[in-house]
Amino acid sequence: LAATVVDRQNHHLFQPLLYQVATAALSAPDIASPIRSILRPYPSVTVLLGEVEEIDTGARRVRCAHGKVLDYDILVLAPGTRTGYFGNEDWAPFAPGLKSLEDARAIRSRLLLAFERAEREPDAELRRRLLTLAVIGGGPTGVEMAGSIAELTRHTLARDFRNISPEETLILLIEAAPRILGGFDEELGGYALERLKRLGVTVMLGQKVEEIDARGLTVDGRHIPAGLVIFAAGVTSSRLGEQLGVETDSAGRVPVLPTLEVEGLPGVFVLGDAAAFRDADGEPLPGLAQVAKQQGIHLGRALVEHIREGTPLPPFTYRSRGNTAIIGRHAAVYETPKRRKVTGWPAWALWALVHVHLLVGFQNRLLVTTQWLWRYLTYERGARVVTGDETGIAPPRPASDPAVAEEQRIA
Amino acid sequence: LAATVVDRQNHHLFQPLLYQVATAALSAPDIASPIRSILRPYPSVTVLLGEVEEIDTGARRVRCAHGKVLDYDILVLAPGTRTGYFGNEDWAPFAPGLKSLEDARAIRSRLLLAFERAEREPDAELRRRLLTLAVIGGGPTGVEMAGSIAELTRHTLARDFRNISPEETLILLIEAAPRILGGFDEELGGYALERLKRLGVTVMLGQKVEEIDARGLTVDGRHIPAGLVIFAAGVTSSRLGEQLGVETDSAGRVPVLPTLEVEGLPGVFVLGDAAAFRDADGEPLPGLAQVAKQQGIHLGRALVEHIREGTPLPPFTYRSRGNTAIIGRHAAVYETPKRRKVTGWPAWALWALVHVHLLVGFQNRLLVTTQWLWRYLTYERGARVVTGDETGIAPPRPASDPAVAEEQRIA
Repeated sequence: LAATVVDRQNHHLFQPLLYQVATAALSAPDIASPIRSILRPYPSVTVLLGEVEEIDTGARRVRCAHGKVLDYDILVLAPGTRTGYFGNEDWAPFAPGLKSLEDARAIRSRLLLAFERAEREPDAELRRRLLTLAVIGGGPTGVEMAGSIAELTRHTLARDFRNISPEETLILLIEAAPRILGGFDEELGGYALERLKRLGVTVMLGQKVEEIDARGLTVDGRHIPAGLVIFAAGVTSSRLGEQLGVETDSAGRVPVLPTLEVEGLPGVFVLGDAAAFRDADGEPLPGLAQVAKQQGIHLGRALVEHIREGTPLPPFTYRSRGNTAIIGRHAAVYETPKRRKVTGWPAWALWALVHVHLLVGFQNRLLVTTQWLWRYLTYERGARVVTGDETGIAPPRPASDPAVAEEQRIA
Repeated sequence: LAATVVDRQNHHLFQPLLYQVATAALSAPDIASPIRSILRPYPSVTVLLGEVEEIDTGARRVRCAHGKVLDYDILVLAPGTRTGYFGNEDWAPFAPGLKSLEDARAIRSRLLLAFERAEREPDAELRRRLLTLAVIGGGPTGVEMAGSIAELTRHTLARDFRNISPEETLILLIEAAPRILGGFDEELGGYALERLKRLGVTVMLGQKVEEIDARGLTVDGRHIPAGLVIFAAGVTSSRLGEQLGVETDSAGRVPVLPTLEVEGLPGVFVLGDAAAFRDADGEPLPGLAQVAKQQGIHLGRALVEHIREGTPLPPFTYRSRGNTAIIGRHAAVYETPKRRKVTGWPAWALWALVHVHLLVGFQNRLLVTTQWLWRYLTYERGARVVTGDETGIAPPRPASDPAVAEEQRIA
């Protein structure tokens, strides 16, 4: 029994805390663990850094971008999702999503640079534009981003500038539906809305974004000049699912059987956000970390028994641990599996506990907890770093790695 | 009394620990503090993110790249140094120096990717090249880099790969002089050499680098294929000194009077690495953090008294706190101001104490200490993250900030 893990990244990323890297609360490495060190205890597992380019389910073969070819008996696909712009891919350069460390660092730079530029800008109108920050999408990611930006401007940055008042920043949260946190109970959505307003966020409900460009965005026919636009409104599946040659659903997800196997492709499994797994009610499971984690553990154990002892693969059943989102200090929502609703302090404490618990690696937990405690006491944020290639000023960025170029030349 | 601080970066960087970011031991934000938050308590100080393009000492005016013009009564220049390639600027893309967070992140990526590529490389010769890492320069930076890379390969990465043995990595430390740590007593240089050898570093003394290219480097006529070359052999002053129109020394430093003022330019001062300040013996002070820090404190206080009370500017005197460099775990050298020599455990503990003490910001100190303790106990390193734009694989990097482009269009 030998397994090969292929990933485009060298690290496993804890996506639920990406918004904290984007708002300078945590460093990128705090929420990422090297895949190699996670799998170190398992000598039968080989890790390869690489991008899968082609899957040939007939020949049972995977080809990577760097030329490596892997033959398989069993293929497990868990490529996750990427930001989806609903067909408006041209919005991407003007409105980063929040799916990778690059996204988070890009948002952090733009966010901090908007204030730096405003500080030296003599023109009042341009200053107002720079200090208008728009978050598109009222799901958990959008709510968390808007809340965290509000706390950053109202507390951390408040006394750091001389020519501008960061507290006057206009923070917009734009949602096409008539309410925010649509995945939660209506009462919890109402609570979140009230807390966001109290933090100074302007929530625009039932309004549709029609255009995003370099100067801002157009919402319901009205152009809003903005210094930063963040797209937290949609995700779409990785393009890898299409390689299987089966029909995907509208979100690009691959339909799977109760065993997580793909119908008609024995030995091929899809997990996590990229899979459309329907529960007993016929509803596809939501794209949550806990779904992916439970599916991974289930399939790993099932496959070992199946291969070693010939046991038939058991069906997967999802056990919800509840659902949570944070708005800010002492303000969060938590919906238990039995639909009990928790808000405020207790939900906030639960949110923190769950997120520290889910972080991979004891060191990461320790560092993140230390930083949260520090921020709680001081309102300070530790990761307010913009580096040269992001400032737009004198980028003496080292040329791309010559070893890569040469390797491609040799290949 | 009002002061404006202009910097190309939004952060103050603690350069002595850059090598730890380059070798995945610390995160970039751990050794950087926002200039704004450092200066928050002083309402009379304005901070501007920007690059100074032109200094007109006649009109007493400074012009920044983004168009801002600042008039001054007193000008203090403290721009530091950059990596100097002794006229071989074409080496820069193949051999990053270690002066900025970008440098450190670039080295970290290349270092970690060399192992990733070797792991999937079927050709033994190419594998050997990827696992040859060369550090040029046997000063403190070179010694610290080589020692830290050795510990990374011998401990942290040792059990993480299946097809390669990171312990077999060839680590070269190349120095043109006949000994390493030339700024320290000879006995301490000998100790460091012995400790580096014990860590598995191949030290090449009295050997000159003649060429660096994409495939490796040429040393004394011999070509050495290498997967990573780091240039820690020289620094040269910022180009800003030339703007003053006075003659600089061979290292590009501006000669200053005992008051730190530039001769012939009343009201213009130069501090730190960019200044050639000669002590009582006529020797220029070394480019050390403690020199720059003492000069800054001295001049700040002197200027306030001078302006408020007309006191003449007192001359600066340097008080050495000793000099230290680290080779690895339990191995460091420390030379006291009275030339007493300390090595091993006590020097190592002193090194750690001094460096944590000099770090700006209590949170940084806490985080760095936590990570050091963690690494001490586990040999693990927390910042082994390579992000997409560095992997050379599918870089879905968000386009450069449209706000910058537009701002330039408007200006």
